[in-house]
Amino acid sequence: MKGLAILGSTGSIGRNVLRVVDAFPGRFRVVGLAAGTNVAELAGQIARHRPEAVSVGSPEAREALARSVNLQGIEVGVGEAGMVAVATRGGAELVVAAAVGAVGLVPTYAALRAGRDVALANKETLVMAGELMLRQARERGARLLPIDSEHCALHQCLEGRSREDVARLVLTASGGPFRERPADSFRDVTPEEALNHPTWDMGRKISIDSATLMNKGLEVMEARWLFDVSAERIDVLVHPQSIVHSMVEFVDGSILAQLAVTDMRLPIQYALSYPERWPAAIPGLDLGRALQLDFSPPDRERFPCLGLAYRALEAGGSHPAALNAANEVAVAAFLEGRAPFTAIPGTIASVLDELPPSPVATVEDVLAADRSARELAVRALDRIGTHEGALASRGEREWRS
Amino acid sequence: MKGLAILGSTGSIGRNVLRVVDAFPGRFRVVGLAAGTNVAELAGQIARHRPEAVSVGSPEAREALARSVNLQGIEVGVGEAGMVAVATRGGAELVVAAAVGAVGLVPTYAALRAGRDVALANKETLVMAGELMLRQARERGARLLPIDSEHCALHQCLEGRSREDVARLVLTASGGPFRERPADSFRDVTPEEALNHPTWDMGRKISIDSATLMNKGLEVMEARWLFDVSAERIDVLVHPQSIVHSMVEFVDGSILAQLAVTDMRLPIQYALSYPERWPAAIPGLDLGRALQLDFSPPDRERFPCLGLAYRALEAGGSHPAALNAANEVAVAAFLEGRAPFTAIPGTIASVLDELPPSPVATVEDVLAADRSARELAVRALDRIGTHEGALASRGEREWRS
Repeated sequence: MKGLAILGSTGSIGRNVLRVVDAFPGRFRVVGLAAGTNVAELAGQIARHRPEAVSVGSPEAREALARSVNLQGIEVGVGEAGMVAVATRGGAELVVAAAVGAVGLVPTYAALRAGRDVALANKETLVMAGELMLRQARERGARLLPIDSEHCALHQCLEGRSREDVARLVLTASGGPFRERPADSFRDVTPEEALNHPTWDMGRKISIDSATLMNKGLEVMEARWLFDVSAERIDVLVHPQSIVHSMVEFVDGSILAQLAVTDMRLPIQYALSYPERWPAAIPGLDLGRALQLDFSPPDRERFPCLGLAYRALEAGGSHPAALNAANEVAVAAFLEGRAPFTAIPGTIASVLDELPPSPVATVEDVLAADRSARELAVRALDRIGTHEGALASRGEREWRS
Repeated sequence: MKGLAILGSTGSIGRNVLRVVDAFPGRFRVVGLAAGTNVAELAGQIARHRPEAVSVGSPEAREALARSVNLQGIEVGVGEAGMVAVATRGGAELVVAAAVGAVGLVPTYAALRAGRDVALANKETLVMAGELMLRQARERGARLLPIDSEHCALHQCLEGRSREDVARLVLTASGGPFRERPADSFRDVTPEEALNHPTWDMGRKISIDSATLMNKGLEVMEARWLFDVSAERIDVLVHPQSIVHSMVEFVDGSILAQLAVTDMRLPIQYALSYPERWPAAIPGLDLGRALQLDFSPPDRERFPCLGLAYRALEAGGSHPAALNAANEVAVAAFLEGRAPFTAIPGTIASVLDELPPSPVATVEDVLAADRSARELAVRALDRIGTHEGALASRGEREWRS
């Protein structure tokens, strides 16, 4: 039985990881679970899997958890220290990094430093500190396996191939819910519209990132480090059906593509079973019916976040972490109704303009860049908010800042 | 420099092999060339490449060749013996088997027996004697590399994967020129219509096989031996754009597909450069433009040849060789205007009905089955011809038997 620790166990990916665990009885032992504030879900997971260690986001959540489930014999931590304890727990051979955003950085880094294999859904950690993460994994002989469907696809297309034979990676993008929406109506996008993803059922933050195409930008950055391929050899194609999850083009013009149904349990299962493949517990693509697959280049003018991601990746140093921080701040403001959809790229561009890229040698450097960018992003949003507020006062938009 | 012998050098594949050779100066040395009766083309190839040995289809062709090009220092053979001499020539590290039909069987077998790697375009040899060929290749440590675009695709998708992880192979088919033609007009198909393939520029015999879908049936049989996968795990999908050249489905529901432009030089180059990959001399797929890929199951009622291929493969023994022979006879009759398009499946079915499958232990057994099936096919065509002749006398069709 493979010992698992799951960071972000109550999120969309975390819950699907546990569904995969349930689908393969006797294969896995859940050693640790870390969540934020969803105490009810975590209590159920604890009752079912009886891990050795758990972690929650706050002391209040810990108290609520203690009232909800029997915690006898279970080590209960809080916050980053609690996540690190779960991530480095003895017996956790594979750490599933499925927290959302920058919060996963330190625990994931700790898992790699402890030589644990990491199945990574928390792409922000690679965006922020890809070079450090990869160096740590290499030094400790730890395996870094992607859970993102696109990177799982690339992993499958690249496996066993010589890196010299690779011409470029092509990440596919569904295009999100606004693929065909006119750019001049983007200011009026509501969180509900943006959360309504056409092909994937995902968490809130990643759904917004899909709507702005920033998710694809973050994936380009993730791919750059996971597969050690430079930015100019990573492309994006819009593929509305989300059946081809990504492709690799080789130097002879041959392309390998990976196809599968849009169900996160498949890439999760691949990461959990790797290097084996197990028969899936869910139906595969139905090739007995007509199937149409469309591909087209993304519209970088309507979706400026994609270009911002390339810009940050090419600038290097602290810029990727700054871009990620600014994006998290802007997306949170949009989801809370404090900023329009169009403020997201505006905030990021403003932060990248203001914060010159600085070298990143340690996780502390990354975290410092993250903090500075968040402060600048809040100020940029205030400026945009004031501007938008002026518009709202003219009756164009209602604000609740 | 890799020494090459090319069987069928003046055919469509053979000429493309030499274009690939020309595109990579210094990589290959052409040691031997074998052709049939296209003396003019062969003379040009000889003048350019100065091989050590050549072969032609008849004594008359040899005389014509001697009048066309300086043959000093070149060993010139005739017929099967000449092809075998070219295929087993010292210095030929890789033998390209690109003859069309059963004529390639003995020379290709001889190449494998001599321990030569074989790049195989002549699928009929594997259809007729797949098990013998594979056993010979294994015993002699010879590599058998596919040149068919579909099998090249499967080779790329399978390479480095465990065979236990494979759920099935999916061969794609363009669907040929009659993909949407009503079945009740199939009797009126002319050779010109059938030769007009929508996506591939190929030789005459294979173009007709594409129009009947027998080509796909032969490819299923070829795949069965090349990749050691049983018939029930090989499927066919119609894909009119001919961009996805084939796919492999794994046990976890994940599918790998290979895409490339429809140019035979790419699979040829892959076979010639293997295990390396070289930058292609021709432009790759343009992913900067919109691309639509369609897939649907084949219509087995309108294209009975596909089912006949599965039937022969499942019956085993001499049946695949009999099917191939009957098909060759019927296609030749159709191309010469002696039989209608619909006589092709009728002739094959009749031969399979009449000739019970017998065990095949040697190449001689295969050749005996081939001869018997040809005789039966001629008789079956006579019966069909008489029947059609009666129809023609009623003014429905003009015959030049």
